[in-house]
Amino acid sequence: MKLDINEHPHRRYNILNDEWVLVSPHRTKRPWQGKQEKTAPADRPTYDAGCYLCPGNVRANGDSNPNYNTVYSFKNDFSALLTDTPSDEINEGLLRTKGDNGICKVICFSPDHSLTLPLMQVRSIEDVIGIWQKEYHELGDIEGINYVQIFENKGALMGCSNPHPHGQIWSQNSIPQEVVKKSKQQLSYWNENKRSLLGDYLKQEQQMDKRLIWQNEHFAALVPYWAVWPYEVMIIPKRHVRSIADLTEIEKTGFAKAIKIVTTKYDNLFETSFPYSAGIHQAPTDGKAHHEWHFHMVFYPPLLRSATIKKFMVGYELLANPQRDITAEQAAGTLEGLSEVHYCQRK
Amino acid sequence: MKLDINEHPHRRYNILNDEWVLVSPHRTKRPWQGKQEKTAPADRPTYDAGCYLCPGNVRANGDSNPNYNTVYSFKNDFSALLTDTPSDEINEGLLRTKGDNGICKVICFSPDHSLTLPLMQVRSIEDVIGIWQKEYHELGDIEGINYVQIFENKGALMGCSNPHPHGQIWSQNSIPQEVVKKSKQQLSYWNENKRSLLGDYLKQEQQMDKRLIWQNEHFAALVPYWAVWPYEVMIIPKRHVRSIADLTEIEKTGFAKAIKIVTTKYDNLFETSFPYSAGIHQAPTDGKAHHEWHFHMVFYPPLLRSATIKKFMVGYELLANPQRDITAEQAAGTLEGLSEVHYCQRK
Ligand SMILES: O=P(O)(O)O[C@H]1O[C@H](CO)[C@@H](O)[C@H](O)[C@H]1O
Ligand SMILES: O=P(O)(O)O[C@H]1O[C@H](CO)[C@@H](O)[C@H](O)[C@H]1O
Repeated sequence: MKLDINEHPHRRYNILNDEWVLVSPHRTKRPWQGKQEKTAPADRPTYDAGCYLCPGNVRANGDSNPNYNTVYSFKNDFSALLTDTPSDEINEGLLRTKGDNGICKVICFSPDHSLTLPLMQVRSIEDVIGIWQKEYHELGDIEGINYVQIFENKGALMGCSNPHPHGQIWSQNSIPQEVVKKSKQQLSYWNENKRSLLGDYLKQEQQMDKRLIWQNEHFAALVPYWAVWPYEVMIIPKRHVRSIADLTEIEKTGFAKAIKIVTTKYDNLFETSFPYSAGIHQAPTDGKAHHEWHFHMVFYPPLLRSATIKKFMVGYELLANPQRDITAEQAAGTLEGLSEVHYCQRK
Repeated sequence: MKLDINEHPHRRYNILNDEWVLVSPHRTKRPWQGKQEKTAPADRPTYDAGCYLCPGNVRANGDSNPNYNTVYSFKNDFSALLTDTPSDEINEGLLRTKGDNGICKVICFSPDHSLTLPLMQVRSIEDVIGIWQKEYHELGDIEGINYVQIFENKGALMGCSNPHPHGQIWSQNSIPQEVVKKSKQQLSYWNENKRSLLGDYLKQEQQMDKRLIWQNEHFAALVPYWAVWPYEVMIIPKRHVRSIADLTEIEKTGFAKAIKIVTTKYDNLFETSFPYSAGIHQAPTDGKAHHEWHFHMVFYPPLLRSATIKKFMVGYELLANPQRDITAEQAAGTLEGLSEVHYCQRK
């Protein structure tokens, strides 16, 4: 008997972070008697007087938001990193500690409280990318800020405490460990082949055509071979671009379209506002050239079977190894087949 | 200004898996407007006719459970790993895949549907440890089973779909990656010092006495310096014991007491049945001596502020680096101060 990845339990290797995922394709038939989530209430007002992100409203620290009409960023009132921390290293026996410092920001995607990325116009998503670029530049230029992590937690299920469309940026002195892993893998491939690891991977995916869910001239969206989350997706620029700072104007539009389409397909999957954590991995801002880096955006969504049943990353996954049931190919096939028109916007 | 780990954001190094956690001690004052969980309904019957784990009942695959009266184990009806998978390796361009096989079991801790570990007698918890030992032996002895992962997902919040007291064992051919990391770190310390890494760590914790929450002659429970989850706890045997198979009878009783006390303190923390994923990390069963291994049990509980507010491991944590707000020392102080008598069993 030969190994059949559509039938047999197997492990897949993640070329980007050097880790493995256990895939159990036969287990999709398992019934579910566990926890069910509530779906998010639909129909939010375009302005909410009690929302600390809406234009003109007062925030936790007493400041007022301006009457912004596109995007807006400000320093997080509850930053996990601060600017004035001493960066000492303390070693005491087996205990190792290092001070860390940085700047945390909140990015409002739109003044309209009722929107989410898939419901926004491509033009408005370009504005979001624009402010990400600006922040990546400005924060990255600050002496001692070596990485700028851009991300969005969408939906209550992903720890988002305010439905106003927004994301965050945590920029910092140390390079976060997921980024260190991806740097290492890309660098060793670059040194050996003088080509981008992700660029070559994308070419292989285009040839195989089993996990692509959408592409245009400049960007492709796919379920990576080693996906951990049920409907995990990666958006990759076709050109070898190290960071969002290096995008051309037309590429920026292509990226905005890719984001709109991926998040629209997500919402259409279970006809719900699809929760996820998403973020951009790109070249560190530590002053090195980082030719090895090929920027990409990843989406980690928890839902598995319906708007109310998620995949739990618990016992085995936390203690031993990430595990999934549906295969990347099944997830990609489903996502590829979904409409690019949002279910709330169909005539 | 010098780095003060009670005040300043800093990173701590995990000696066991070679990873870092970001600690933001100043952030405990953050208000919470996000998702709140429902608490688990109290008062379950001792027998539930609809429960597939209660004695005598019929399971999903049509088998009936025996009328067991202590502990009971059976093969998981929805095993993520199967015995007959070819273990081929397939390399296709950048895609790497390996067949994996194994045996998954369910372990009922008690015939009484209403119980949980903290509500069980120490004698009954010894029976649970007894069946873990038996399974570790029997599964580990099977040719091709190189690791036996014992774990429990407790509570709906941790993906547990049946409140009947039970845990799981996933045993398999490949060694899971969290175990590979811990093996590597322990082995290099052993080679250098001919002493157990965890043994030396425990001695340091006993001297410092800042993170211990309880100990008896044979076991200690503490919040590790590098804890990721808010109230993460590790139970460590004082003697250098490679696996639960090597425990003496009196150590087994000491371990049962440690489990009872840790889980009782957990329930007392927010006066709720405290959810967690817990499991045992110990020597692989791949036929090597593994002198480097010092077995331990870890508890990863999600609750942060109350029975209904958990810590979300989302955007930054998934994409960049684990992050926590309360320090390990704060968590240990709180847990240490809690009663060893369960809040439901006080007179
Ligand atoms: O107990 P179950 O239903 O097998 O499943 C539970 O534990 C497994 C192992 O940690 C996870 O893979 C599942 O996501 C979780 O729901
Ligand atoms: O958006 P908030 O409220 O800052 O916080 C949210 O995102 C953070 C970064 O991923 C997490 O640390 C928190 O657990 C989560 O609730």
